[in-house]
Amino acid sequence: MRDPYGLRRVLEPAGVMPQPAWRLDNTMVCGDDEILIDVDTLNIDAASFAQIKSDVGADADLIGRRMLDIVAQRGKHHNPVTGSGGMLIGRVREIGRESSALRPDGLTATVEMSGPSGAGGTVGTLRRRGTSGSSDAPAAPIPPGLAVGDRVATLVSLSLTPLTIRAIRDMDLKTGQVAIEGQAILFDTGLYVTMPDDLPDRITLAVCDVCGAPAQTARLVRTGQTVAVLGAGGKSGSMVLAQARRNLGATGRLVAVEYDEKSAASVRSTGYADDVLVCDATQPVSALAAWQTATGGDLADLTINCVSVSGTELASILITRDRGLVYFFSMATSFTTAALGAEGVGKDVDMMIGNGYARGHAQLALDLLRTEPPLRELFAAKIEQSTSKGMLT
Amino acid sequence: MRDPYGLRRVLEPAGVMPQPAWRLDNTMVCGDDEILIDVDTLNIDAASFAQIKSDVGADADLIGRRMLDIVAQRGKHHNPVTGSGGMLIGRVREIGRESSALRPDGLTATVEMSGPSGAGGTVGTLRRRGTSGSSDAPAAPIPPGLAVGDRVATLVSLSLTPLTIRAIRDMDLKTGQVAIEGQAILFDTGLYVTMPDDLPDRITLAVCDVCGAPAQTARLVRTGQTVAVLGAGGKSGSMVLAQARRNLGATGRLVAVEYDEKSAASVRSTGYADDVLVCDATQPVSALAAWQTATGGDLADLTINCVSVSGTELASILITRDRGLVYFFSMATSFTTAALGAEGVGKDVDMMIGNGYARGHAQLALDLLRTEPPLRELFAAKIEQSTSKGMLT
Repeated sequence: MRDPYGLRRVLEPAGVMPQPAWRLDNTMVCGDDEILIDVDTLNIDAASFAQIKSDVGADADLIGRRMLDIVAQRGKHHNPVTGSGGMLIGRVREIGRESSALRPDGLTATVEMSGPSGAGGTVGTLRRRGTSGSSDAPAAPIPPGLAVGDRVATLVSLSLTPLTIRAIRDMDLKTGQVAIEGQAILFDTGLYVTMPDDLPDRITLAVCDVCGAPAQTARLVRTGQTVAVLGAGGKSGSMVLAQARRNLGATGRLVAVEYDEKSAASVRSTGYADDVLVCDATQPVSALAAWQTATGGDLADLTINCVSVSGTELASILITRDRGLVYFFSMATSFTTAALGAEGVGKDVDMMIGNGYARGHAQLALDLLRTEPPLRELFAAKIEQSTSKGMLT
Repeated sequence: MRDPYGLRRVLEPAGVMPQPAWRLDNTMVCGDDEILIDVDTLNIDAASFAQIKSDVGADADLIGRRMLDIVAQRGKHHNPVTGSGGMLIGRVREIGRESSALRPDGLTATVEMSGPSGAGGTVGTLRRRGTSGSSDAPAAPIPPGLAVGDRVATLVSLSLTPLTIRAIRDMDLKTGQVAIEGQAILFDTGLYVTMPDDLPDRITLAVCDVCGAPAQTARLVRTGQTVAVLGAGGKSGSMVLAQARRNLGATGRLVAVEYDEKSAASVRSTGYADDVLVCDATQPVSALAAWQTATGGDLADLTINCVSVSGTELASILITRDRGLVYFFSMATSFTTAALGAEGVGKDVDMMIGNGYARGHAQLALDLLRTEPPLRELFAAKIEQSTSKGMLT
C-alpha cells in the first residue's frame, strides 16, 4: 500500500502527520515506497543545538547523550523544546520496490522557464514526484534515478524523519555538525539531493537550503519586465538575482535593493543588476522615494523579497505596480501585514507565499551556481560569514 | 502635488506612513487630490471599543470623552492600546480638483473574469485608481464617478484617516456604532464604497468587509476546474462559493468544506456546491482522507481557504494537486506554516496571500449578492448570528 507521507510510521498521537507526531516508528525495515539510508552526518538545527548546549553544557559527551535520549523517546531527532530538527547526509542502502525514485515516470525533469534562456534552460532534477499525472512543464531528458550507494542529503527536516543512532563519532560544537553511525527512513514525498562530486558539501547544502527561491524565479520572470530583488546580497537573494538576469537576458530592468553600502558593493560587482539601490526596506516611505528617484517612477512588475528581517512587506508592495506580483521568500514575512498593507494603500497586487520546494529546484540551483562564476564567488563569501539559518528546521 | 498616500498629513514621527504615524494633521481643508467627507457614523473596531469600555466603563458619556481625547491627541481615531480603528459613513462634501475620483481615466471598471460567465460578467466599480497606467482587464462601461452629496463608507481603517469630531449624538454600546457630527479626509488611494439604495447599510458594510474574496475568486476560477472552498458557510466563504459556481457554470467540480453538520446543511441548501464535505481542516490526515473518499482521489486545482481558525494550512495544501493553487483569505493563516508545510510534504503548489482589495471588488460583491438569492439568504442569516469581525481594524 502506498503511503507517500509516512502515516504508518506515526505511533502517537494517532492520526497526525509525522512532523507534529510525538513519536515515530523508527524500525529500520525499508517499506515498499520508502528509502533506507545509512547516515554518517547530522546537521542539527542551530536553535536546537544551542538549546541542548545551554541545557547540558558545551560538552560533546553530554550533548551526545541528550541526542540519544531524544531519538530513543521520539524515534526522530525532534527537539521537544525548540520543535526543530535539522538534516542528514548518508548513503542509500535500500530502495523500496514501489519507490517513485525507481520509476522513470515518477521522475520530473524540469522547472518551467520563461524568457530568452528558456529554450535551453530546462534542467534535470534529482527529485522524483510522489504523485502521478502530467506535468505542466515541457519534457526534458530524464536524469538517472536514485541507486543504492548514492550519497544523498535529505531536504526534509529531521523532525519528521525516522532515525536511529548506533554511535556518535565526532561533533563540531560550533556548527552542530555531528558524525554518527545510524540509519534513517525517507518517505516517498521526502525531498533529497544527490551530493555532487564537483562541489564542496558545505556549498551544496547551503544552495539546497535556499534552492526554492531561484527555481520559483525561473518560473516567474518574463522578458522585458522590471524586476526588484530585495535583499539581493544574501544567499537566496543572490541566487534569485542571477536567475532573474538569466530569464531577462539583455531585456527589462533588474533592480537590486540592499540595506548597506558594503552589501550593495558586492552585488554591484556581480554585474547582474541594472541598478543597485541602497535603502532600508523597513521604512516604506523612504524606500519608495529611493525607488522613484532611481527608476524615474517605473514601478516593478515583479518584486521578490529575500530580506531576512521583518517589516519589509509594505515597501515591497509600494514599489510594485498595480496588478504586479510580490513574491515573499523571507520567513520573516507576516501574512496579515502583507494582506492588510496592500488593502490599506489600495494596491491591487498579487502576493505569493514562497514555497521552499519546486520541482527540480536543487538541480536548477546547483547548475546556476556552477555556470555563474560571479554568483559562486558572492555565495561562497556569504557562507564564510554566516552559519546556515535557513528553512530546514 | 500629488500625494496618493497622504504623506503630507503625517506630523509625527516624520517620514512614516499615515497608519503607523502617532499623529496626523486633521485640518479639514480638502487637498487637491483628497476627498472631504461630512461624517455621520463611526463604526469603532470591536477590539478598540471593548478596550475603551473596559477602561472607562460602559457609559456613553465617558466613552465619548475618551473618543474625543483620542482624536484630539492623534488627529485620527486610532486606539493607542489596541492599534485598531474602524470605519466611517458620511456624505461627500468636497472633491479635490486632482482627485482620481473625478477623472474618467482614473476609473477602472472591471475585475477580470474567466469561465463561461466571463463574457457578460464584467462589472462597474465604485473605486478609482490612484495610479495611472493600463489595466490588464478588458474595458467596460465606466460607472459614474463620485459626486458631492454621495453617501459613502470608507473601506480603509480609521487608524489612517484624518478625522474631527464636533459632537457625539448617539452610541450603541453593544455594537460600537457611534452617531457623530464630524469630518474626515480620504486620501487618493483610500478605498470607499458608495452606499447603494437597494440594500440595508448593515448588509452593504458586511459585504464590503469581505468583498476582496469573491473578486479574487472571479479572477482565479476557470472552466472545468476542481475547486475546493474551505469554510464555505462563512461570510467570505459563501461569497466565494457563489462566485466560483458562476465562473464554473455547469462545468468542473465545486467542493465545499465545512466544520460542522449545521453549517454544511445551510451550504447544501444554496445548491452551489457539487459536494459538501464535513471535516475538521485543522486535522490534515483525516481531512485528506475525507476528501479522497468524496472525490475518488481527484485533487483540487484551486483551493480557497476562508476558515477563520488557525492551523488549516496543511489540509489546504494536501487536498490540492501538484502545481495547483492555494489561495489563503483567512487572516488566521501563518506564512511560515504554509511555506514550511508545503516543503515538508514535497508539494509543488503555488500559494497566495489574499489581498483584501481588487479593483471593482465592492461592486462585484454587491452585484453578486443582489443576483444570487440563495447567497443573500445565507449571508443575511450569518450577519444575524455574528458581529462583524473583519479585516477593517
